[in-house]
Amino acid sequence: MKAITVRPPGAGARVEDVEIEERGMKVRIIENGICGTDREIVKGLMSAATVPENYDFLVLGHEALGILEDDTDNLKRGTIVMPINRRGCNKCINCLNGRADFCETGDFVEAGIKGMHGFMREYIYDDPNYLVPVPPQIRDIAIMAQPLSDLEKSIAEMIDVQGRLHWRCMDATYGCRKMLVTGTGTIGILISMLLKTYGFDVSIANRREPTDVETRIFEEVGLKFVNTSVHRGDEKYDGVIEASGSDASVIEYAIRRLKNNGFLGLFGFTQSGTLSLSTVDLQSLVYRSISITGLINGQKPHFEMAMNHLVQWKTQYPFTTSHFITRSVNISDQKSVLNVLENRIPGEIKTKILW
Amino acid sequence: MKAITVRPPGAGARVEDVEIEERGMKVRIIENGICGTDREIVKGLMSAATVPENYDFLVLGHEALGILEDDTDNLKRGTIVMPINRRGCNKCINCLNGRADFCETGDFVEAGIKGMHGFMREYIYDDPNYLVPVPPQIRDIAIMAQPLSDLEKSIAEMIDVQGRLHWRCMDATYGCRKMLVTGTGTIGILISMLLKTYGFDVSIANRREPTDVETRIFEEVGLKFVNTSVHRGDEKYDGVIEASGSDASVIEYAIRRLKNNGFLGLFGFTQSGTLSLSTVDLQSLVYRSISITGLINGQKPHFEMAMNHLVQWKTQYPFTTSHFITRSVNISDQKSVLNVLENRIPGEIKTKILW
Amino acid sequence: MKAITVRPPGAGARVEDVEIEERGMKVRIIENGICGTDREIVKGLMSAATVPENYDFLVLGHEALGILEDDTDNLKRGTIVMPINRRGCNKCINCLNGRADFCETGDFVEAGIKGMHGFMREYIYDDPNYLVPVPPQIRDIAIMAQPLSDLEKSIAEMIDVQGRLHWRCMDATYGCRKMLVTGTGTIGILISMLLKTYGFDVSIANRREPTDVETRIFEEVGLKFVNTSVHRGDEKYDGVIEASGSDASVIEYAIRRLKNNGFLGLFGFTQSGTLSLSTVDLQSLVYRSISITGLINGQKPHFEMAMNHLVQWKTQYPFTTSHFITRSVNISDQKSVLNVLENRIPGEIKTKILW
Amino acid sequence: MKAITVRPPGAGARVEDVEIEERGMKVRIIENGICGTDREIVKGLMSAATVPENYDFLVLGHEALGILEDDTDNLKRGTIVMPINRRGCNKCINCLNGRADFCETGDFVEAGIKGMHGFMREYIYDDPNYLVPVPPQIRDIAIMAQPLSDLEKSIAEMIDVQGRLHWRCMDATYGCRKMLVTGTGTIGILISMLLKTYGFDVSIANRREPTDVETRIFEEVGLKFVNTSVHRGDEKYDGVIEASGSDASVIEYAIRRLKNNGFLGLFGFTQSGTLSLSTVDLQSLVYRSISITGLINGQKPHFEMAMNHLVQWKTQYPFTTSHFITRSVNISDQKSVLNVLENRIPGEIKTKILW
Repeated sequence: MKAITVRPPGAGARVEDVEIEERGMKVRIIENGICGTDREIVKGLMSAATVPENYDFLVLGHEALGILEDDTDNLKRGTIVMPINRRGCNKCINCLNGRADFCETGDFVEAGIKGMHGFMREYIYDDPNYLVPVPPQIRDIAIMAQPLSDLEKSIAEMIDVQGRLHWRCMDATYGCRKMLVTGTGTIGILISMLLKTYGFDVSIANRREPTDVETRIFEEVGLKFVNTSVHRGDEKYDGVIEASGSDASVIEYAIRRLKNNGFLGLFGFTQSGTLSLSTVDLQSLVYRSISITGLINGQKPHFEMAMNHLVQWKTQYPFTTSHFITRSVNISDQKSVLNVLENRIPGEIKTKILW
Repeated sequence: MKAITVRPPGAGARVEDVEIEERGMKVRIIENGICGTDREIVKGLMSAATVPENYDFLVLGHEALGILEDDTDNLKRGTIVMPINRRGCNKCINCLNGRADFCETGDFVEAGIKGMHGFMREYIYDDPNYLVPVPPQIRDIAIMAQPLSDLEKSIAEMIDVQGRLHWRCMDATYGCRKMLVTGTGTIGILISMLLKTYGFDVSIANRREPTDVETRIFEEVGLKFVNTSVHRGDEKYDGVIEASGSDASVIEYAIRRLKNNGFLGLFGFTQSGTLSLSTVDLQSLVYRSISITGLINGQKPHFEMAMNHLVQWKTQYPFTTSHFITRSVNISDQKSVLNVLENRIPGEIKTKILW
Repeated sequence: MKAITVRPPGAGARVEDVEIEERGMKVRIIENGICGTDREIVKGLMSAATVPENYDFLVLGHEALGILEDDTDNLKRGTIVMPINRRGCNKCINCLNGRADFCETGDFVEAGIKGMHGFMREYIYDDPNYLVPVPPQIRDIAIMAQPLSDLEKSIAEMIDVQGRLHWRCMDATYGCRKMLVTGTGTIGILISMLLKTYGFDVSIANRREPTDVETRIFEEVGLKFVNTSVHRGDEKYDGVIEASGSDASVIEYAIRRLKNNGFLGLFGFTQSGTLSLSTVDLQSLVYRSISITGLINGQKPHFEMAMNHLVQWKTQYPFTTSHFITRSVNISDQKSVLNVLENRIPGEIKTKILW
Repeated sequence: MKAITVRPPGAGARVEDVEIEERGMKVRIIENGICGTDREIVKGLMSAATVPENYDFLVLGHEALGILEDDTDNLKRGTIVMPINRRGCNKCINCLNGRADFCETGDFVEAGIKGMHGFMREYIYDDPNYLVPVPPQIRDIAIMAQPLSDLEKSIAEMIDVQGRLHWRCMDATYGCRKMLVTGTGTIGILISMLLKTYGFDVSIANRREPTDVETRIFEEVGLKFVNTSVHRGDEKYDGVIEASGSDASVIEYAIRRLKNNGFLGLFGFTQSGTLSLSTVDLQSLVYRSISITGLINGQKPHFEMAMNHLVQWKTQYPFTTSHFITRSVNISDQKSVLNVLENRIPGEIKTKILW
């Protein structure tokens, strides 16, 4: 079948015919999403990328929608499904309980990234337990459920960690808790929408003024915007989610913005710089009960939550959700496909490949 | 009445007669414990130390045992009690729910340290809700319950934070979880005992070989010892509790020792140095789901837990508990009192002042 | 202003002009929902119904939507809001933390029922903390958020109680957990939708065959139907939510349907009969770790969750949500108003009064 | 080897030589405890009792201490150990996570009761994961850890269930929560001690006046006594633990004693009678948020907790703990052994068989 392949650590992607041995229910892929990780692999910059055992190539792609072509115990032929991208090590207690996001051994595989063929191909055969049904009403935006699943897990994790203290407000909601999300990219916007849905008071930050589209999104969702290049101010937050993946100075900035008992969630991968914490900074983490926690990956319950939220948001935030898909290219247009696999489109939220 | 007073930010302590206006149940103080914070205040090195409103002095002391001289609703005259040292701000949801350890406003007071007279005096008058009864069987070592209460809270907090994933082992205990405690001082030993009591596999570390007494304590409690000056090795831990309060390099060491999903609890106040985390370090916090959390103070439930554990340990670890009290000086021996208030005794676990 | 009043324990309702002293933000009521409790009060059958202090009448109504006519700190003039119906006792720890659903003293008040004027009137003045904003996209069905809030709390409570064991499945979802909801009325349908949204495998039961509308609702939402009059069978469930409020034999039936570790949630008020549990039944509760828990009321976080779910469902279950509102009568049509206040409409899901 | 055997459903016990095929670490049994279940099996009254596959007899006994005769990874030869009595089904998620107390399939085995040879024999060979080390300081009373493990689990479960609401008091302890334990037998006393250790306000009830020994135990532990035959009064409790296993009327009594949000834990096996709950009773369960939960079995973490508490109590409650062992009979005294296996000794807390 036709597939988009890479050969890490080498750079470059190809559209070519491949043969893959797989068992399970047949799923015909209808579309893929592209994210920064895909582009890093294509550029040969991601050291963790590895081909599956017995193959000399890796099919790219960890965001996909497909049509189920067999009946399963719980799902009917014709159901739109999203395959889960990370699969557990089958050894540690977290993976054995469906929580490969907390794999202890590191021996998980990840579709299109690490030791498992990805989803950028005509069809896959898969265990139905890893196929999440997609409500047909959100077929157009459901590809967002993969990145959103990571964030569902992240915010649930934050709420778990902060559950060590009284974090709900006097009215038992999160309405009094101020959250700051650093980064206005796809991830920053999705996290902010999620926090807002949980009832938090949410600000979103960038080092520049927002674009017109961003401004309208922030208004629709009810987000406050902070331009950190002009306003490094003294506003304090109950939590900061770092979603920019820029340089280490963002993390230093975030730590200084935290109130007592503040939570700093690290989601973005810092790209450069060094974080320096002085003796005074370190003491402050202690006597102010700060928690800094790395946030990564979502599993099946988080995909389910993501589907629910996308359905909700499609009605509630029509402007924002109608801007989720920046561009769609057809797999037959090989030149455009290879182009969008290498280069981010300006203002991109999500670029899709259609099959 | 006679009291030990300080006048922060000035250095020096005095034994003198003072008058203090207080309401509540009368408690005759029978002994105080001395800790590093007391000595910092006496040396004028603790910037946070403040006198109570309307006073120009501060009675020192946050570790005390006393005899209740009035009947309360729940406690009889003659009961040995320990007063709780930190009192809440009465404004934030944590303080209003008895959790001043998670005070949000910072407006709590702390006996003998910040805005509230301490317990180094003949008697106090106090609200019985802040008096924790002491089992008479541990009168000799119960002074340890104050520092231990902080650690009870800290370990409970760690278990809460790690509860975001499957952290109990396949047999539902913590027996497979390896913990490292950095520092073999009073705090390091108490934390290690507590972790052992919770069923963890516990190692304790210092930069030097243990003393003979330490070696016997580690044997009795069942602790493994690591000399980090010779063995910086590659052993990994599910959690590290930093209890040395030495320089920032300990924290860097601790982060490198963590397994996936590892928890780093910061209890000790770092005294010098800077922690530098590179881009690679920061990315590792994210994809390995690390949590770094500041741990401070214990409240009433933690004092109660501390009393239970001290009773248990007195039977189970007789050598260790018999070494808890390094030296006792009588308040009438003013010269010795002022001496132990300024200088740590070599090999000290706890030095007491008797009234 | 015009209001619908009752004079418990007397029967009967009136539409009349009343004067009420209240403070707070002005809210112009636009519609009310009617539920079984309202009808019991109107019939003089509800012994708990009491007039507010200093009044000889009670304004009826605990389900309402209104338009905010003042700006508040968080909400703008013109926002559609739903007032929360139960208000806490201000004394117990649950009420002080925004959880009047778990009031310990019983001294809470309940709008239109117990000691507090209800919402069937032209306007109310209220504390903005008790006003929940309504997404404008669901203005037509948002009245359902009041009963749904009770169910949001109930299902969250079930998940808390079952959290004492491993209740998530091997894939970390609830997909393997079979739930039975007894009763196909408004409450039964809303609970089933909620359980389905949480990912459970849901059956809904009645003693008769479903109507055509019910059948289509069950199909759309993905519910299995059980006619318990013909099929008392041996299917077992991980949980049963009793939502019929019929006779005590339903509870006996439910207990027999529970698997080991099963949860029986009692939401409906049993109307007749006696539950008899034999020695064998009682022993079985013990060795099979059964939990039977009363479920009542929802508070602010549950209203917020209800709004989210209604937005989601409006897109996902258009047939079902379009059948939520069975009939609307205008307050000016006094005869019809008094009629729907006394008599349930056949096939009713929700009847509204428009202002 | 010598063993005490039964042949359910037949009555009678024998001391005889048996051959048993087992693998694992060798443990020489040094003593067994006898409980009511053993006596029911001996009397042929326990229908659940079954012989292991391929045997026509069952070795009795689920309470045992032994000496480990091999070195294991974690335990040294010579360590005193207690074998865990219930072993999981290896199929359900609870058993796979070490929580056979919540076995879903019912296919667990139970030493000396259901499908697994018990511990009343010279030695066993066992998987070291099922052997819990015993602190040598409590060798004399450690046999109590088996029944206590069930109660550790039960109280932890109660705290989990009540964690659905704010159950800790304003001072974050359980000091304001009133608990009633019905039954002053071994189980009633152990539960009361445990609740007291957790900080609850504890009353213990029987239908008669306490004996002198009981009175002294209640005084030492700090328990209030209620004679329910004379004082059916109106005192209300936040929780009741039914530990008498008498007739169903106790449960009715318990339900009437519950405050709002009250928890009724069923631990004892009701022996006779029928519980009748009227419509009013059933409605009250709902609007008062009552939870009734069956409590059974403890697993490895609960055995560890039991060991800790026994060490604590030995120091703290010397009178009580010195009365734990009512009588010890030597296995060589066959007549006495068979006698204590059939008949409860008046005033018995625990009768032991020594090997």
